[in-house]
Amino acid sequence: MLTKKELKEYCDNARENYLAHISIDCVVFGFHEGLLKVLVLTMKNGGECYLPGGFVRKKEPIEMAANRILKERTGLDEIFLQQFHVFGDPERSKEHFEMYKDMIPAKQNWFNNRFLTIGYYALVDFSDAIPNPDPLSVACTWCDLNDVPELRLDHTLILKTALDTLRLQLNYQPIGYNLMPKEFTMPELQKLYETILDKKLDRRNFQRRMLGFGILNRSEQPRKGGAHKAPYLYSFDLENYKAALREGFKGGW
Amino acid sequence: MLTKKELKEYCDNARENYLAHISIDCVVFGFHEGLLKVLVLTMKNGGECYLPGGFVRKKEPIEMAANRILKERTGLDEIFLQQFHVFGDPERSKEHFEMYKDMIPAKQNWFNNRFLTIGYYALVDFSDAIPNPDPLSVACTWCDLNDVPELRLDHTLILKTALDTLRLQLNYQPIGYNLMPKEFTMPELQKLYETILDKKLDRRNFQRRMLGFGILNRSEQPRKGGAHKAPYLYSFDLENYKAALREGFKGGW
Repeated sequence: MLTKKELKEYCDNARENYLAHISIDCVVFGFHEGLLKVLVLTMKNGGECYLPGGFVRKKEPIEMAANRILKERTGLDEIFLQQFHVFGDPERSKEHFEMYKDMIPAKQNWFNNRFLTIGYYALVDFSDAIPNPDPLSVACTWCDLNDVPELRLDHTLILKTALDTLRLQLNYQPIGYNLMPKEFTMPELQKLYETILDKKLDRRNFQRRMLGFGILNRSEQPRKGGAHKAPYLYSFDLENYKAALREGFKGGW
Repeated sequence: MLTKKELKEYCDNARENYLAHISIDCVVFGFHEGLLKVLVLTMKNGGECYLPGGFVRKKEPIEMAANRILKERTGLDEIFLQQFHVFGDPERSKEHFEMYKDMIPAKQNWFNNRFLTIGYYALVDFSDAIPNPDPLSVACTWCDLNDVPELRLDHTLILKTALDTLRLQLNYQPIGYNLMPKEFTMPELQKLYETILDKKLDRRNFQRRMLGFGILNRSEQPRKGGAHKAPYLYSFDLENYKAALREGFKGGW
């Protein structure tokens, strides 16, 4: 449990070091072999669940703040976070003010501020990333998307918006680099798409569209071993992949 | 020219009414018959050029703030603005502080704050929208995209990012409703895409893809008059159009 003294120190420190009215929240999706999960923090102080989040230092670029926050809260480092939306409902952080209002005068209460939050998301291989909670959290866990506990504030909306954005981006930008092994089969790549979209895709259409994007190289040697006809192996053409990240797929206008 | 007294009043008023550290900037693209323009403000105080922008009131939802700011600065009302990016470089608004630092002590200077700015963009028919500058601006003008004057702060970057976003979105979301007449020909719609993308498109590919999205209804009657074979007329299927705005094109995964 946070004491009054600790809360006052936290608020004084926040006022001194962070920009008022702005916070950052991170939606980290984890993929591994056909499973999609999301990173959730459980706080010591009451067991409430949140997305990992925090504040921006007075002279810190926001992208750096997002990465620092994720590292501080979860122990995860060097994850490429992508900005996706600002949540600006005037009432969105009121619950935090209410939570502390009996412990500290409103004027001293950092959470008496209205906070706009900038949402960032990332997609990582969860088998590579071992979360490690900070001192304020009792746990930092990969939760199945269908089994996420109730999140506080507007974090359920933030999670939903991130997932919608990711699914929409599948239509015009490549994903998979950093998630797939160096070489992979077409069905393995299809599984990634199916997991994120939460639906089955037609094998032939998938292959046709994927090849049409021009971001894959086919290896000359099919995969060895196995009883069936050996499947072709693919790898990402990194130059075309990066161009497609910047400009959208070639299949575009 | 702004006097010291006016500047002090402006700063006192801003501190009392607006959230610190947050601003909003609007990129309003105007399209009409094959021309693409952008709305630029010229300030009285020195003639500097900016995108229309302003601050968020303490209890105001950010979407409402964006619309209010656009209306106050340009006279344009009921324009659907879409959030696209937050610009958070710590130095991005320093120039504003420098501009006023000899006129007002730093502590009283509202522009001594670091401001993150939330970028919004819109695409409207510029023949419908008559801009009307506010008392701080000497002019509010539709500028050709190739002929935009030098913009202050990071507004050139904001404009470029908005244009890149719009072009990328053409690949997965419909546009054109509110820009095209109720009924239009395929070449008329193609012209809209070509203008935004600043390149020629293949007529047959355009038609095939456009029809594939399932957002157009073809009228039974071709357009009358004219010497050539009468072209088919199309209108947007509003239900499918809106679904595609939410979920991306059907042609997606």
